[in-house]
Amino acid sequence: MPMPASVQSGSGQLPITQSFSVTLTGHRDASLEAAAQRFQAQLSRQTGIPFRPAPAVAPVLTIHTDHGRAAVQKLGEDESYELTITDSTASLTAPTPLGALHGLQTFLQLVEITPTGFAVPAVTIKDQPRFPWRGLMIDVSRHFIPLDVLKRNIDGMAAVKMNVFHWHLSDDQGFRAQSRKFPKLTGAGSDGQFYTQEEMRDLIAYAHDRGIRVVPEFDMPGHSRSWVIGYPDLASGPGPYTLESGDPILDPTRESTYKFLEKFIAEMSKLFPDAYFHIGGDEVDGKQWNANPKIQAFMQAHAMKTNQDLQAYFNRRVEKILAKNHKIMVGWDEILRPDLPKNIVVQSWRGQASLAQAIKLGYSGLLSYGYYLDLMWPAARHYAVDPMADAASTLTPEESARLLGGESCQWAEWVTPENVDSHIWPRNAVIAERLWSPQNVTDVASMYARLKAVSLDLEWLGLTHRSARLHMLERMAGSSDVSALRVLADVVEPVKDYNRWDDKQGPIDFHAPLNRLIDAAYPESQTARQFSQLVQSFLQTANSGNTSKDPAAESRIRASLTLWRDNDAALHPLLDRSFLLEEDAPLSELLSAESSAALQALDYIDRSQSPPTDWRAQQSALIDQSKKPVAGLLLMVAPPMQQLIEAAESPHN
Amino acid sequence: MPMPASVQSGSGQLPITQSFSVTLTGHRDASLEAAAQRFQAQLSRQTGIPFRPAPAVAPVLTIHTDHGRAAVQKLGEDESYELTITDSTASLTAPTPLGALHGLQTFLQLVEITPTGFAVPAVTIKDQPRFPWRGLMIDVSRHFIPLDVLKRNIDGMAAVKMNVFHWHLSDDQGFRAQSRKFPKLTGAGSDGQFYTQEEMRDLIAYAHDRGIRVVPEFDMPGHSRSWVIGYPDLASGPGPYTLESGDPILDPTRESTYKFLEKFIAEMSKLFPDAYFHIGGDEVDGKQWNANPKIQAFMQAHAMKTNQDLQAYFNRRVEKILAKNHKIMVGWDEILRPDLPKNIVVQSWRGQASLAQAIKLGYSGLLSYGYYLDLMWPAARHYAVDPMADAASTLTPEESARLLGGESCQWAEWVTPENVDSHIWPRNAVIAERLWSPQNVTDVASMYARLKAVSLDLEWLGLTHRSARLHMLERMAGSSDVSALRVLADVVEPVKDYNRWDDKQGPIDFHAPLNRLIDAAYPESQTARQFSQLVQSFLQTANSGNTSKDPAAESRIRASLTLWRDNDAALHPLLDRSFLLEEDAPLSELLSAESSAALQALDYIDRSQSPPTDWRAQQSALIDQSKKPVAGLLLMVAPPMQQLIEAAESPHN
Repeated sequence: MPMPASVQSGSGQLPITQSFSVTLTGHRDASLEAAAQRFQAQLSRQTGIPFRPAPAVAPVLTIHTDHGRAAVQKLGEDESYELTITDSTASLTAPTPLGALHGLQTFLQLVEITPTGFAVPAVTIKDQPRFPWRGLMIDVSRHFIPLDVLKRNIDGMAAVKMNVFHWHLSDDQGFRAQSRKFPKLTGAGSDGQFYTQEEMRDLIAYAHDRGIRVVPEFDMPGHSRSWVIGYPDLASGPGPYTLESGDPILDPTRESTYKFLEKFIAEMSKLFPDAYFHIGGDEVDGKQWNANPKIQAFMQAHAMKTNQDLQAYFNRRVEKILAKNHKIMVGWDEILRPDLPKNIVVQSWRGQASLAQAIKLGYSGLLSYGYYLDLMWPAARHYAVDPMADAASTLTPEESARLLGGESCQWAEWVTPENVDSHIWPRNAVIAERLWSPQNVTDVASMYARLKAVSLDLEWLGLTHRSARLHMLERMAGSSDVSALRVLADVVEPVKDYNRWDDKQGPIDFHAPLNRLIDAAYPESQTARQFSQLVQSFLQTANSGNTSKDPAAESRIRASLTLWRDNDAALHPLLDRSFLLEEDAPLSELLSAESSAALQALDYIDRSQSPPTDWRAQQSALIDQSKKPVAGLLLMVAPPMQQLIEAAESPHN
Repeated sequence: MPMPASVQSGSGQLPITQSFSVTLTGHRDASLEAAAQRFQAQLSRQTGIPFRPAPAVAPVLTIHTDHGRAAVQKLGEDESYELTITDSTASLTAPTPLGALHGLQTFLQLVEITPTGFAVPAVTIKDQPRFPWRGLMIDVSRHFIPLDVLKRNIDGMAAVKMNVFHWHLSDDQGFRAQSRKFPKLTGAGSDGQFYTQEEMRDLIAYAHDRGIRVVPEFDMPGHSRSWVIGYPDLASGPGPYTLESGDPILDPTRESTYKFLEKFIAEMSKLFPDAYFHIGGDEVDGKQWNANPKIQAFMQAHAMKTNQDLQAYFNRRVEKILAKNHKIMVGWDEILRPDLPKNIVVQSWRGQASLAQAIKLGYSGLLSYGYYLDLMWPAARHYAVDPMADAASTLTPEESARLLGGESCQWAEWVTPENVDSHIWPRNAVIAERLWSPQNVTDVASMYARLKAVSLDLEWLGLTHRSARLHMLERMAGSSDVSALRVLADVVEPVKDYNRWDDKQGPIDFHAPLNRLIDAAYPESQTARQFSQLVQSFLQTANSGNTSKDPAAESRIRASLTLWRDNDAALHPLLDRSFLLEEDAPLSELLSAESSAALQALDYIDRSQSPPTDWRAQQSALIDQSKKPVAGLLLMVAPPMQQLIEAAESPHN
């Protein structure tokens, strides 16, 4: 994962033994040599084999690249590779090390354990990406994410062949990039957690080594509270501002604002070598502009009718500064105004219609709508979103070429360094596949099977998307005896979309502990998905009129339901002991009650008996209850249990 | 754990909330401030709470130290502390930061989750160690252990108040300490894996910050193959030598050997600030001395009758070099000869008798017998070994003062960076308790309960003694579906003592992969221990003649037996698919068969029926079989199952 463009199976398999070795031919450079070494170390970690090739033995894997990569990775550089594996040797060829990097990741994913040893199946792969821009955005403002956590996520991106790390470095809640010219940006505009310039350079080099560009984002003129705490003159209204309160936006009418941005952008342009520079531009709340008489006078003097006109003026000014620094502007949908130069890139959180509109106007575009990882959607829902679908399907070939790809987005309202991996992975891998693989790679069952395998590989890279949950459960339980808690955690998911927070509660407290079950739960429950499939298949057989239902499926369903029915008794003592788990007690009771009901439903189905009316009424109340989130969590096995209950009630039985 | 010298419970509890803060009074220095910060970070990690004390609020924990620590930590420095916790405040006082470090660890262990929040129970603790030398030795020669793995183990040592890291830096299979004077020690005498001087300095500083001395060991004149590969003139016989073969020992008769050691020891003495320097001295195989006519002539000329005499001569020469470098010699039992200065320290792998002998002769001593972690003993067996027991119990108070303490030893024949944590932890914590806590702290049930809690805490430090196994099981399975494999892994232990290797197999291949089930299995099975207790208690009630046995215990026993009986069917497809698991198939079958038998035994017991003769014969064969290791693993639930079978056969029923 992502599925290669072309795969031809061969016969036999290449054994991976202690004498495995790699050699480079053709072009070679330090970065490629480092990549080959990382590859061997990773293969060694995955297999537990310390490689010791005998000096005289021919190398097993030969890597050939024609020429070097650009010193600064460019959009659209050739990323193709060919990988040929026979039962005795493997050959990876690519025009540049970029393709070789991808080919090595493919090789690692092909390694499997067999009855005779570790091996890679014989295969011929010719592969190149569908889109040249395949990104992951991580918001580090709302919750700071330390460098080492970013690095392991970059390793994850490289494993699934993503090539752009979009670093959302500033937002209302914190400015995270050190500026030497304007030290109060982080000094006053953060809680002390930020990246030094050395650290940012380190990360950029780390990403470059792995074939990944780094595009910084400094959000302006909105989402900019953290700018104005240290530099209140930038704001369009009077302060004072704190990191917790106020909704300032930058003042586009003062020349001093552009003087500031000229210096700041020049500094950051030197730090970030990539050709693209993201200025945000989203969700500008014009209240301060409306309330400021000077700004209103400026708008009148320049015949601007709306705040959008003023933002467009701001963007044009900023774009000129960027151009002077040889940077191409990227921004969210809202920057789209016909009077900007055509080389800018619009990143669409609004959808394919907005994206297609930008492209038809001559701009380039990226899709992020449908790829917001913080919305807690199942992988299949992200997977179904294609950049070229819907409104974008009418683009001409020439226009399509300006649809550069897409980016998944990890907004950080509800993550910490502890659980951010599990919010990104493994789901991000299916977005990576959508952006790399041919458009017709859409089989969901195949996707989930491969996602499970890749998820395992990703933990060998050091990502903690699966392992962190156990520690969080143990913290909540105050004990390592968490099997009953795990049973509950396995069948729930956090509420979807933006339902975790209700504006009526006031602003989010970004300093609150994120140590509840909702913070530990996986965004997608594999247990619930598999149980649901099992129930569908069982009911299909049952409804087909065939009297021999499917005893194996029924017995597996009964085993799960029994486990869940009895789980509350096992879990309750723990829930009572822990203030963090108390809120989950109704969820545990609900799981137990509904499992009991579903078991009864199976009994009715088995006896072809119709349940009494009061039983139906009871179950209906239970079903209603199970649709409401408890402590921010949804009981994901409730819908299939409801289907069992309804099947028992239906006259077909 | 370790249990403090004096604990007085108070009433109520101190809540740990977001406003928790720490202040230092009295003496303060950078190292103590760093310790307080580490403490807060660790508390934050354990609880998931990002602390944000309001500026105006009084600090919750006040640390008071009278004066600073020695710049180089000394044996016997005051490590005492007092910790007083009420329902509103906590106070930690200690003569020096050393005691404060220990008190902070005690505080961390006291934190628990309650129905109202995280809290520490009100308590007054006065604590100091029983022995001044409480060490852990790690062999990094047989398998290299990278610096980051050592660091997390040092964190673990600090958590259980150990204060000496004994770094076994050289042995036959690899010289791991960089010498600038003799670069071929690592250049030829290692596989390229060694610590640079900067790295060693870094580790020493890291350990010092945590109250831990670092004592280097360079094993001589035996265990010294890695010395002579680069410097063959040191050897007592002709080479050539490789890291894999040859049994060279240093030549004590040539002056050039001492010239070499003078330079080497001077260099290492500067690098390692500790007053003690370990020269090994164990297991000197005199074959080369016997075979070398020049050495034989030297011995005759100096009236030496035995190789022990020659080693004693060598030791006296080395001791003089050490003394010139202001170092005190430490060595294993074998260095003990009456003509060495009295300040040397004998580390006994032979036992209390050998230790007491050294002490009675006027030397100081350390016990390591009984603390060899690589022997795979259960925690209780290590816990039962007291340095002052047996022959050492007759020491006078004056002599006892020279019994400095002890060291656990992790020899590295069978560990890698991946599983070394699980070979050391959590069992090392009970040896730490033996060396810190009063001699009368010996309750095994209490020990196991507290060990379970401390094991959880240790993973929050970054140790992987529990989590690494899951990854290893997933590697063997080639899948994340490892629940059946985990059931098997939970009830087995690696063979004990030195039974993993039979000399008939030839020398150990130190480069072989360590990725089998025996490498992943915990040294002690908690499941087997608890099952065994349950069976004992059930049989006791059953044998008491009381007709109402213990239905709750029986039902739990039956649940476990049923799980195990059915596990083979679930596991078998996996065993067939993986060359690493194939060898474990007989073990899985045995578990299943014996569980069936034990369930039948329960049926006989329940019916007060005597089993037929052929059943008995069958079970007897099964029991014999279950005593033999399979793939280096012992079925640890076999003995309690055997007890059930025997109980069914006994006339009492």
